[in-house]
Amino acid sequence: MLYIIGIGISEYDSLSTNSIEIIRNCDVIYLERFTGFISDEFYDKLKVEVSKSIGTLSSPENHELKFVKRWFIEDGREILQKARTLDVCILVYGDPLVATTYGELIVRAKKQDINVRAIHSSSGILSLMGESGLQPYKFGKMVTMMDDPMSSITVYNTIYDNMCNGLHTLILTEYNNDDGKTDFNSSSNPFFLSPKRVIELLLEREKDMKSINFSSNTYGLVACKIGGKNSIIIAGKFESLLRLDYQGGPNSVIIPAGLHFTEEDSIQNLTKMLDPPIDNSKQLSRMANRMLNKYIPNAKIALSNLNSMLKSEMSELTKDYQLVLDNAENYLSDAQTFYDQGKLELAILSIGYAEGLIDSIRFQKNMNPW
Amino acid sequence: MLYIIGIGISEYDSLSTNSIEIIRNCDVIYLERFTGFISDEFYDKLKVEVSKSIGTLSSPENHELKFVKRWFIEDGREILQKARTLDVCILVYGDPLVATTYGELIVRAKKQDINVRAIHSSSGILSLMGESGLQPYKFGKMVTMMDDPMSSITVYNTIYDNMCNGLHTLILTEYNNDDGKTDFNSSSNPFFLSPKRVIELLLEREKDMKSINFSSNTYGLVACKIGGKNSIIIAGKFESLLRLDYQGGPNSVIIPAGLHFTEEDSIQNLTKMLDPPIDNSKQLSRMANRMLNKYIPNAKIALSNLNSMLKSEMSELTKDYQLVLDNAENYLSDAQTFYDQGKLELAILSIGYAEGLIDSIRFQKNMNPW
Repeated sequence: MLYIIGIGISEYDSLSTNSIEIIRNCDVIYLERFTGFISDEFYDKLKVEVSKSIGTLSSPENHELKFVKRWFIEDGREILQKARTLDVCILVYGDPLVATTYGELIVRAKKQDINVRAIHSSSGILSLMGESGLQPYKFGKMVTMMDDPMSSITVYNTIYDNMCNGLHTLILTEYNNDDGKTDFNSSSNPFFLSPKRVIELLLEREKDMKSINFSSNTYGLVACKIGGKNSIIIAGKFESLLRLDYQGGPNSVIIPAGLHFTEEDSIQNLTKMLDPPIDNSKQLSRMANRMLNKYIPNAKIALSNLNSMLKSEMSELTKDYQLVLDNAENYLSDAQTFYDQGKLELAILSIGYAEGLIDSIRFQKNMNPW
Repeated sequence: MLYIIGIGISEYDSLSTNSIEIIRNCDVIYLERFTGFISDEFYDKLKVEVSKSIGTLSSPENHELKFVKRWFIEDGREILQKARTLDVCILVYGDPLVATTYGELIVRAKKQDINVRAIHSSSGILSLMGESGLQPYKFGKMVTMMDDPMSSITVYNTIYDNMCNGLHTLILTEYNNDDGKTDFNSSSNPFFLSPKRVIELLLEREKDMKSINFSSNTYGLVACKIGGKNSIIIAGKFESLLRLDYQGGPNSVIIPAGLHFTEEDSIQNLTKMLDPPIDNSKQLSRMANRMLNKYIPNAKIALSNLNSMLKSEMSELTKDYQLVLDNAENYLSDAQTFYDQGKLELAILSIGYAEGLIDSIRFQKNMNPW
């Protein structure tokens, strides 16, 4: 039998009674710290716990308790082989099925008719949403930032899409504790991407992408070491968040969209607040809005110019031109109405149509009203 | 001191060692089952656990262990009053901060300088995402379905928005265990909205909204009693899911968008699969796509008709008309290209513009090519 056990976000403290029971009865106990960090202290405490029950194992000669590396889990053959005859468990930070690694291992076990069970536990993701005081229902797709500019493009686009829908974005950050060399039986130096670097990467992307309008005034929340004794959530403008020094992890960054007043109240009371909350979505420039903000006023001016140009050419506007101009005017007014109603597709269609009517006369009469 | 303790999704089994320690040392222990169900068996087990430690309490005369109702928690005054001098804990199903109720209580406690701490635990939301084999990163905004048609409109729109972005939707379902009358010290009959009713409501909304194109062939996943001994995830077409009989809860429904092949593999191996996976997003008809699918071919025909009409009127097309027609042709071709590239705003603008060029001649010459 194979158990994939989530230890939760507070190591021994968050381990469930049932998980401890399972661990005590398992022949083989693996720990890994590449999907999330697990400390040596936890390993030591577990060793004591497990040693008490070794005598009760049916085959104590097979007993094994050790940290294993990424390749060992991903290869998985030894694990699955042992799980055919022995009780094997793997201990994982947080909830075990958030990392795709274990979903895949479970599928492989099922295909080989090996009994397998996941034990769920507290997860950093949901915990920090709750701790931040933001509504879990107002979060859109979550995303992970790696320390590389390509990754930050995906993150930028995810924030943009979420914000267009009025949703907050949770950015998980790169964590790396497996260089393939480190001895995992001793404490190593895990790499946690700093929240500072996340903000810097977002500001860098802003230069090319120009849609969210990130600036020193953008509001963000940084969650550090959620579940740990020194956990903290800091809220403030990018410029304030950039001034702090962040050590260790895991860290996450939240870019909120518009905030409900109860969310503002929570930020004020639950976080270390450096600046009062700001509605980031007011800075957002959606593709559709950018188009309409520019095109509607421009087309109004062009239509008025065209009217004057035609009138100065003819003493009186002929009925056919008048019909085109009237239609252009009506569709411009429709574009504004649709825009105000948030019906962006119809607004864009209307403004395009009005521009086409205007330009048809421009092409025919070779006069440029723009 | 006030503790808000998540008991997780498996009652005593999912309770953490730290939570048990806190509960043992608390003077006042409240349980509630209006944000999520907690059984009488759990209450009984807890009573035994707590009775062992009553002797160690500093003021055992204040000891209290009981189920409380929604109004008692939402009012909160008695809880906060007691927490000034006693150690008080509230036990909550799942993770405690998913329900807004407790975020608000924590803020009130902080404002009154009462020490407060949330203990996180396994949550049904993240657990069932993992158990389903779908990628947690591919879920959009989540939503709750209540047993009323107005609620189903919000759910429908959320699924639509998520699917437009290629994201799965997790639908939590109404749970009600507080009619204000029930005696909460005895087992009551909680109301769990049936997955069947969720599907029926979505199919009803389809009749008016016509965007997602829900049908008997839509693919869904139903998660029942996640965390419990009889937990199960069933995957299949709506018509297959509607044939089953669902008892109790909690239940959730997932409407997947497009599926990655590893997700299809997981569905096949981790769920009770009634039908092979289907890509729901192929049925989706986005507003923009509906417009473009109709308008581009229609405008092509109109342009060709206009060409013939003009030619039959004049022996040779004058240069000014030719310029308008050529431009219309170019913009129609642009519209198609932008559409193929997924640049929907630009595609709509181009098709509107081409239509405007065509209609300008239509108005001037009083000829209808549409």
